[in-house]
Amino acid sequence: MLKFSFSEVTKRLRSAKSIKINEIIYKAKMSGSDPTVLSLGEAYFDIPNFGFDDALVQDGYHYSHSQGLPDLRNKIVGYLAKTHSAASLDMEDNIIISMGSKALTYMSMQLVLNPSDEVLLHEPAWLSYEDQASLCGAIVRYIPYQASLQDIAESISAKTKLIVINNPNNPAGSVYNFAELQKLIAKAEDLGVFVLVDEAYSDFSLTDEFTSAATLVPKYSNLIMVNSISKNFGMSGWRIGFAIADKHIIEKLTIINQHIVTCAPTMLQMYINKNFDAILDVCKAEIDILIRKRLKVEKLLKKYNFRYIEGGATFYFFVELVAPGNNAANLASELLEHNNIAVVPGDAYGKTTSHFIRLSFGTESIDRIEKALQIISNKTSQ
Amino acid sequence: MLKFSFSEVTKRLRSAKSIKINEIIYKAKMSGSDPTVLSLGEAYFDIPNFGFDDALVQDGYHYSHSQGLPDLRNKIVGYLAKTHSAASLDMEDNIIISMGSKALTYMSMQLVLNPSDEVLLHEPAWLSYEDQASLCGAIVRYIPYQASLQDIAESISAKTKLIVINNPNNPAGSVYNFAELQKLIAKAEDLGVFVLVDEAYSDFSLTDEFTSAATLVPKYSNLIMVNSISKNFGMSGWRIGFAIADKHIIEKLTIINQHIVTCAPTMLQMYINKNFDAILDVCKAEIDILIRKRLKVEKLLKKYNFRYIEGGATFYFFVELVAPGNNAANLASELLEHNNIAVVPGDAYGKTTSHFIRLSFGTESIDRIEKALQIISNKTSQ
Repeated sequence: MLKFSFSEVTKRLRSAKSIKINEIIYKAKMSGSDPTVLSLGEAYFDIPNFGFDDALVQDGYHYSHSQGLPDLRNKIVGYLAKTHSAASLDMEDNIIISMGSKALTYMSMQLVLNPSDEVLLHEPAWLSYEDQASLCGAIVRYIPYQASLQDIAESISAKTKLIVINNPNNPAGSVYNFAELQKLIAKAEDLGVFVLVDEAYSDFSLTDEFTSAATLVPKYSNLIMVNSISKNFGMSGWRIGFAIADKHIIEKLTIINQHIVTCAPTMLQMYINKNFDAILDVCKAEIDILIRKRLKVEKLLKKYNFRYIEGGATFYFFVELVAPGNNAANLASELLEHNNIAVVPGDAYGKTTSHFIRLSFGTESIDRIEKALQIISNKTSQ
Repeated sequence: MLKFSFSEVTKRLRSAKSIKINEIIYKAKMSGSDPTVLSLGEAYFDIPNFGFDDALVQDGYHYSHSQGLPDLRNKIVGYLAKTHSAASLDMEDNIIISMGSKALTYMSMQLVLNPSDEVLLHEPAWLSYEDQASLCGAIVRYIPYQASLQDIAESISAKTKLIVINNPNNPAGSVYNFAELQKLIAKAEDLGVFVLVDEAYSDFSLTDEFTSAATLVPKYSNLIMVNSISKNFGMSGWRIGFAIADKHIIEKLTIINQHIVTCAPTMLQMYINKNFDAILDVCKAEIDILIRKRLKVEKLLKKYNFRYIEGGATFYFFVELVAPGNNAANLASELLEHNNIAVVPGDAYGKTTSHFIRLSFGTESIDRIEKALQIISNKTSQ
């Protein structure tokens, strides 16, 4: 019947698996069920309501600067200098604020990718990278999870235009060696290849091994770092993120931003700017609790003999199903249907990770996590 | 020095002229200047602060449904039924809420356009349509402002994949004949061409001549209507918009939305849902004042012998500079530099409209508008 067709790039899109699972969970909760949610990309922080006075609300009704509220740009640049030693950033030249780091990751891809260009993704790779590249008509090549950053550098081909590194890694929970990352960025620059470093979980590191790629801006002109308030500030529902890069990249991203979203919500930017330090203090304490929880969850994983990718960051574990015949996608469906447990299967994160599941410990209690692990262990051992 | 290059689609992007002008104005205001702002795509409504209680703020920190908060979808569908007689819409199938209608216009283009596809834009065309099409690799063909909807239907070529109609039109201030619009949509459907109707100014019509394309959903499977709370609800800074279309389109737009923005800000959706009718009541009264103001501004235009496109909608006039030798771009620069008056030159809106300027009367008083018109009149009449 239909005489029209959608675009080719849209045909390659996959429904975001984690979002799909979480919408099933959302419906289940609405109908009175009590699922164990190990699928959510969120931790629930107890952040106070600092108040929305009339001045904030009135000014917030109107458009603001499409590069982001100047005062908030200034605050974020200050935070990156203080917390992550990124001392060379200029709030006029090196930062743009937009609708979450997801939107900025996408705009960065739009900025650099031509149809048929190749994007290198290191497994396990956060699931929307592939679809965002697809929307640009680009082709994703997955680098297996066992590969090192040096292996990735050696994988650059004549078609490669972009490498995306998620550091700390969601879902692996691991942190990349910074000296190696810098080498990769330098080699990529020599070869005319961009590197996008997504640091959404920058503040969730148990040790101080993490170094922000923002410390390399504006030194490397092929580097874009994205981050947001979704995880580090516990405000994923606010959809505010930022990108850090050399001036010529920020200028172009600002133009793309003008044509796609105009600006991030004004009132939310004003509120974060006004209460920046107070929110950060609350969240630091919450993150401390969460990374201590990571150690407890890790003990449980060992207790039930799970194998997982080693790492001390984020609120995820990427757990390997070692017994032969285990299929993570089937397991995830079965857990959801029969045990009211939500996890994300590993095939969402790459080509060689379909025998993994992602477990998020952001929202459930240790007791409920252990009960779920018992069930998963029973289903997967042998 | 630089060894890399940006994408081809990005090279074709133009900086959004109206945003650029408004950022100059913003800086001028910050430094204590008092410009006459006839360039802004906003009216300043006096909307009360209905309050942000703790429950709203706490729930608002988290992700919500990527098709939009179900309760708010329901409210908007109810509003379209009541205010615009669109009685056949289903809140599960026919609506998606995202980051402003701008984002949804862009996602709609991503949904349907392949590289080299042709997009028909009727002049004067809102300025981001061209750049959004460029980002999809598509080619824009402008249809001169004198053309009728029937002329547009006859302009469809084998390459045409999308027609964008802004109804009521920004910057012309005019409303399209609905019977002709329906004919265009029907003919386009026969030819496998999509029609995007942008109704951002749907409630700003002096007469009741405006009919929403939402009344034709889901009848026409090639039709997408976008609208937002930016203008009709006076909350442009909140970046909340929605698209209305047949189920198969909404499903795909939801997947694109998942990969680009996840969801519109949760707290803002909750707030609008909670205070929907109260906000609408306030804004209706404000819109009434504004469309009466339109008549006053029109009298002034006549008084100073300006020619403009006829129309009774929006808070814009698209004014023609009839004296030979007038160049709107030069005039706009001169007004900004020498007279502290901001207008948007017509070349932003098409190929044959470079002897027009857009005047927005949303924010300035009648007295200040008259003073500005006197100056513009002196500069342009011989």
